[in-house]
Amino acid sequence: MIRINEHYQKLTASYLFADIARRVAAYCQAHPQVRILRLGIGDVTRPLPPAVIQAFHEGVEEMARPETFRGYGPEQGYPFLREAIAREDFQARGAQVEADEIFVSDGAKCDVGNFQELFAQDIRVAVPDPVYPVYVDTNVMAGRTGAFAQGRYEGLVYLQGTKANGFIPDLPSQPVDLVYLCSPNNPTGATMTRQDLERWVAWAQEHKALLLFDAAYEAYVRDPALPRSIFEVPGARQVAVEFRSLSKTAGFTGTRLGYTVVPKACLAYSADGTPHALHALWNRRHTTKFNGVSYPVQKAAAAVFSPEGRAQCQALVDGYLANAARIRACFKELGYYCVGGDNSPYVWVECGMDSWEFFDLLLTRAGVVCTPGVGFGACGQGYARFSAFGSPETVEEAMERLRRILPSRP
Amino acid sequence: MIRINEHYQKLTASYLFADIARRVAAYCQAHPQVRILRLGIGDVTRPLPPAVIQAFHEGVEEMARPETFRGYGPEQGYPFLREAIAREDFQARGAQVEADEIFVSDGAKCDVGNFQELFAQDIRVAVPDPVYPVYVDTNVMAGRTGAFAQGRYEGLVYLQGTKANGFIPDLPSQPVDLVYLCSPNNPTGATMTRQDLERWVAWAQEHKALLLFDAAYEAYVRDPALPRSIFEVPGARQVAVEFRSLSKTAGFTGTRLGYTVVPKACLAYSADGTPHALHALWNRRHTTKFNGVSYPVQKAAAAVFSPEGRAQCQALVDGYLANAARIRACFKELGYYCVGGDNSPYVWVECGMDSWEFFDLLLTRAGVVCTPGVGFGACGQGYARFSAFGSPETVEEAMERLRRILPSRP
Repeated sequence: MIRINEHYQKLTASYLFADIARRVAAYCQAHPQVRILRLGIGDVTRPLPPAVIQAFHEGVEEMARPETFRGYGPEQGYPFLREAIAREDFQARGAQVEADEIFVSDGAKCDVGNFQELFAQDIRVAVPDPVYPVYVDTNVMAGRTGAFAQGRYEGLVYLQGTKANGFIPDLPSQPVDLVYLCSPNNPTGATMTRQDLERWVAWAQEHKALLLFDAAYEAYVRDPALPRSIFEVPGARQVAVEFRSLSKTAGFTGTRLGYTVVPKACLAYSADGTPHALHALWNRRHTTKFNGVSYPVQKAAAAVFSPEGRAQCQALVDGYLANAARIRACFKELGYYCVGGDNSPYVWVECGMDSWEFFDLLLTRAGVVCTPGVGFGACGQGYARFSAFGSPETVEEAMERLRRILPSRP
Repeated sequence: MIRINEHYQKLTASYLFADIARRVAAYCQAHPQVRILRLGIGDVTRPLPPAVIQAFHEGVEEMARPETFRGYGPEQGYPFLREAIAREDFQARGAQVEADEIFVSDGAKCDVGNFQELFAQDIRVAVPDPVYPVYVDTNVMAGRTGAFAQGRYEGLVYLQGTKANGFIPDLPSQPVDLVYLCSPNNPTGATMTRQDLERWVAWAQEHKALLLFDAAYEAYVRDPALPRSIFEVPGARQVAVEFRSLSKTAGFTGTRLGYTVVPKACLAYSADGTPHALHALWNRRHTTKFNGVSYPVQKAAAAVFSPEGRAQCQALVDGYLANAARIRACFKELGYYCVGGDNSPYVWVECGMDSWEFFDLLLTRAGVVCTPGVGFGACGQGYARFSAFGSPETVEEAMERLRRILPSRP
């Protein structure tokens, strides 16, 4: 009898975005005259930059002719792309990362989800709360947790984000082997400082732990004092892996390209303490279960790192950051506590009430859609996430409506 | 301490294609005047069909304008593609498959590799021998085998392909829960008849087992009596999942698109015997660890199913099949036993000697590269795989050279 992986039965169905859609649909049906302004979903809206489009077309055209056609490429990505990434994303910022330490994939979500396969089933895992759900669900599927009870999985360590710590989780007080970190954070928009990362790297070295650093939103960091890669911190190469994506950097949410940096110095251990290079393990996983990213997409991605591409992507990100600043300014002006929105496309706002109550208030009184913070974990209760990926007009009008309906807070 | 998944340590490094490359390089260096003819690798060489290129460009162009730009799409694929696949690949051949039973991905290798995640760790797994290595390695990584000893992993059931059964493995004689089948087969090119599949479906129903049917080469089936999908067999919807790919159908090895059919009727069980729909489990896995295929690639893929695209892809496949027929005819003429090559791009030839000895003979005497069969498993010893994906000129010249150096066999 073919038996299922029963760990899947522990997964709680995520009703967050389905719930949002249902409530919005019901409201729209009852009030067809209201124009709904959506600041809920973390998806980009602006087209791909011209340099990217041009390279994408060129890549397609190469596939049309026998002399330039490409079949299977290297699973890890073409050297032209890995070299551009190493140079522009890391070496140019003083981070020592070599091209052959970069594994190109079809998105950071896949890599973040798959990376835990490299580890023993009984390691102790810590995730932030609020949390990007993929960190949790993939470890549940792998059998690293107990049942879901009172909003949390037994056996997982939740690193609490609170007003007290500005939504930058503290080091764990209990033993942990694998830690997921995300900065700029999804959903809170909070950014870790160099000192924060130094503290984590020192902690990981002391405990022979590993940091999985999700930097999908690094392009939104504008404060030159803030690190954009964990590899800007000395010693990180031994204890950290970094996930990146062009989704929010260059508008690739529907084009699909991410990459993972696994330094050759990064180690994990057998039960007897023998060290193993994670680079070789991930390479084995990547080449066995993945067959490389579409060649025209890699060609398009390489254009992101050209001088024109960089300027165009910076303009794209600047546009979204201007939206974020508008959202942040509105809530600040009204006296709401918030984080994010300055070096991040997300603004995380304290509602002053239950997350869903706030959601309903904004929907029914202003026709504005946000994401209830409690959907990202227990620590999100009483908060809401606002996304800056809409058009400037949408964001401007949404904030005007909110100014009209929300009371000022002391 | 961060501990590794020690099952990875059981993996034997695959030296097959590295070994081939090394021997070819050494020979080339010693004999720079010889033009090497490569019939080893299973990668296509002809460009994408014009209809596909045009749709690919259109998809890229849509990403350039705000009004047609696409961000995150449905993880399972766009309806326009899933509907075209259901209609043309299945319903047109009398197989009952609905669009929402099709999960579009970036390749069959990924799906075939990932699908085993849905099952308990202690299920009993059977693979063909010779075998596409992904079936084996992904189960080793998941901890479903013991050590590698004498060419095989302990705990795996190997279904032997031999001259006696024409490289169509018999039903297992021991208890098995999950079976990998591949037809037209890689590496042997052998094709399963409707009766073969009916026997497997009946066996799976009787044992509540599951068949993972790899149909990546189905486009090469020309004999109308041969099934192209396992879902042409009544009852298969309860006990089978099918993997497909545009890699060999439409030249997508470097463009990347595959799909997996999980019928809603297909079941697996909890330890207590409760049935679960695999469709829901795979949907959970797919949406948690994958974010959909690049939109322009899906658009290009949909063109494969248009009338022009179908005609152009058929011509592409016909070209490779003509190569396969040339290879097969040559060996038949020389009196060699072989399978495949009529409804498959691979010809599997009995060498009359050790696989590597034959490889070296062909390389050093004729400058022709094949793949030693023993690289695909113990049952491949004494065989070699010839791939039909080269140009007609390459194949023609290679066969001429072989006719000159190979002795006729009785």
